[in-house]
Amino acid sequence: MADWRVIEGGITAPKGFQAAGITAGLKPSGAPDLALIYSDCEAIAAGVFTTSHVRAACVDYCRQRLEARPSARAILINAGQANACTGNQGWVDTVESAASLGSALNLPPEAVLIASTGVIGQRIKMEQLKAGIPKLVESLSSEGSDAAAGAIITTDLVPKSVAMETTIGDRPVRIGGIAKGSGMIHPNMATMLAFVTCDATVSPTLWQDMLRRAADRSFNQITVDGDSSTNDTLIALANGESRTPAITDEGAEADQLEAMLTAVCQYLAKCVARDGEGATCLIEVTVTGAVTAAAAGQVAKTIAGSSLVKAAIFGHDPNWGRIAAAAGRAGVTFDQSDLRIQLGDFLLMEHGQPLGFDRPAASAYLTAATQGDYLKTDTVAIGVSIGDGPGSGQAWGCDLSYDYVKINAEYTT
Amino acid sequence: MADWRVIEGGITAPKGFQAAGITAGLKPSGAPDLALIYSDCEAIAAGVFTTSHVRAACVDYCRQRLEARPSARAILINAGQANACTGNQGWVDTVESAASLGSALNLPPEAVLIASTGVIGQRIKMEQLKAGIPKLVESLSSEGSDAAAGAIITTDLVPKSVAMETTIGDRPVRIGGIAKGSGMIHPNMATMLAFVTCDATVSPTLWQDMLRRAADRSFNQITVDGDSSTNDTLIALANGESRTPAITDEGAEADQLEAMLTAVCQYLAKCVARDGEGATCLIEVTVTGAVTAAAAGQVAKTIAGSSLVKAAIFGHDPNWGRIAAAAGRAGVTFDQSDLRIQLGDFLLMEHGQPLGFDRPAASAYLTAATQGDYLKTDTVAIGVSIGDGPGSGQAWGCDLSYDYVKINAEYTT
Repeated sequence: MADWRVIEGGITAPKGFQAAGITAGLKPSGAPDLALIYSDCEAIAAGVFTTSHVRAACVDYCRQRLEARPSARAILINAGQANACTGNQGWVDTVESAASLGSALNLPPEAVLIASTGVIGQRIKMEQLKAGIPKLVESLSSEGSDAAAGAIITTDLVPKSVAMETTIGDRPVRIGGIAKGSGMIHPNMATMLAFVTCDATVSPTLWQDMLRRAADRSFNQITVDGDSSTNDTLIALANGESRTPAITDEGAEADQLEAMLTAVCQYLAKCVARDGEGATCLIEVTVTGAVTAAAAGQVAKTIAGSSLVKAAIFGHDPNWGRIAAAAGRAGVTFDQSDLRIQLGDFLLMEHGQPLGFDRPAASAYLTAATQGDYLKTDTVAIGVSIGDGPGSGQAWGCDLSYDYVKINAEYTT
Repeated sequence: MADWRVIEGGITAPKGFQAAGITAGLKPSGAPDLALIYSDCEAIAAGVFTTSHVRAACVDYCRQRLEARPSARAILINAGQANACTGNQGWVDTVESAASLGSALNLPPEAVLIASTGVIGQRIKMEQLKAGIPKLVESLSSEGSDAAAGAIITTDLVPKSVAMETTIGDRPVRIGGIAKGSGMIHPNMATMLAFVTCDATVSPTLWQDMLRRAADRSFNQITVDGDSSTNDTLIALANGESRTPAITDEGAEADQLEAMLTAVCQYLAKCVARDGEGATCLIEVTVTGAVTAAAAGQVAKTIAGSSLVKAAIFGHDPNWGRIAAAAGRAGVTFDQSDLRIQLGDFLLMEHGQPLGFDRPAASAYLTAATQGDYLKTDTVAIGVSIGDGPGSGQAWGCDLSYDYVKINAEYTT
């Protein structure tokens, strides 16, 4: 049973964090486009970044910064220009952005991390960014999470934010997070960005290990169509302001903190998948009976990413054959006579062979899930078992609709 | 320079082969659905099959047969039922199909290979199949290639067939091939099937090695959306009827035969990609400058399979950022400052940075390619260089259109 609860406040729910979001004139649309996350004291910082060999300057910058010293005071995020494929000038702009914000905050530039999202091949509009910094700093507030969440989105339909609270050593510990992205893919190949704040006291290596594992069970398990981006960034700060005992080793308290961190990341990851381009529902795939959790996760992600499965769900077609075929090609060895497939409450296949089931009712289940308010709650649940092993895992995606093609065919760089 | 030429005749162009295709009543549509390929004498047989862990009975059957003895006299192919996920009964039906045909041809059942395509979870209609066999055998003809090619297709828009000829030891050697499939994906998750005939004399292990390499450079390099099927099968027969000297070792003549075999497979593979569901054009991606050919092929296939690249081409958008991003996530290490991207004759990116180019003209190039007769000739050429290594490779795909979603959302098992 989860021993945390969802609370209000987003990334400013944890003690000692402030945030801000303003319109600096980076986006042509005039929407908010510059965000700041600020810790009142030095925070342990961990990061997980895109594995692409074509990366934005800010990704290389943050990775180098965190390798040199795993801490930070502030994260500056601009939306509008991805600053990827911008060569040496992109690097210079990133360094200058950090220096400008550091100067305004009376911090050394090394205390500032940078993330960018927007159009690939476009430099950050530095003049607007630098002109906006004083207003941004002035706007910092311990209730600024929503403003920051709204300033990092690009084509997202909704901002994505959550906060949770647990108790460690009789004191409350909180984690908050915001994210942006319409899935791993995006009409302008912008980015999946997520930022997490925490007021626990935790050692840097443990925090990095926790974040890596949480990312593997959340953001790394969502897919819209597998087009991971040049700017994908997840950064988590922990500033110790909860004044709880330091967590420096694996153990019960570390497990508790990691479970809540994972829950925050999974919540945000599901928000991103649900907001996938053209999506009408969230698809949640749960795989059990695998030899390892990694194998289960791989099968789950393959099913969630199958265009045929996604199109069938959009068409309200309980097409178990496509789920079986996707499981079979996932690169995980299993005996096909062990395959069991469930859609919602409908058992479609067992022992590797199709079962009779109420097809109109199963189709109605999909119709209901794809015609409600998908940005809020509607989920299609696919359950797959591939044996009697102890490994289980989940993945999340969305259906494939006409609007996906429309959005991506009609966009022009 | 290629030292072979394209000739008429398909799989019956090589000497000593006959073929037939009839309507046996397996398909609800009443279209031809039963095909036979027959060699007048014992032929060396090699096969490449789906790597899926969910496989049709015929795939396991052929693999076991070829491992026991790499030769065959006949291949029986039924369209309509994939005979996948049909359990033990599926195996029994496959064995019985081979025995029935063997009996009608006065051959031991071991001389017969079986392939099935159609709906997953459906058994072969054995009554119709067995009733059709006498007529099928009676229809065998040395001009039967088109009939066979027409009887193995399901939702393909066109049959796919080719033959080529070269000269070895002063005598003509021919290879013919037929294939079916609307890409690796298919509305009923049926199959990609291809059959190749050859009249050269070649040793079994060399023939299998050649086929594996040819498949790696052709069928394994096409993608519509990565959903490989439960029935994918490529079988190649070589019967020695050209009476050319036996090719038993690697060397000039083996190279010559393999080059033609690869050309036949690439021709058929491109036909399959071009006929991808909803496609309006063939996309050909050529990657150069990689360390190895395998690395180049991997980058090419990742680009050809990117939904974002495919949707951009459907929308006539010369969106180099999506090509760069797909290259970057292909799992092949390269320095992004070496990246060079060309679309048709338009150089879009060099040294990892975007170039100015005539965008309306580049868009017009895509418009022309996607609005012609795509089943015949229209190709979008993407050229990518990732360094100065010797490795090059190609991959083929098609664009992503509204019709892809329509076909796959409206299909019901």
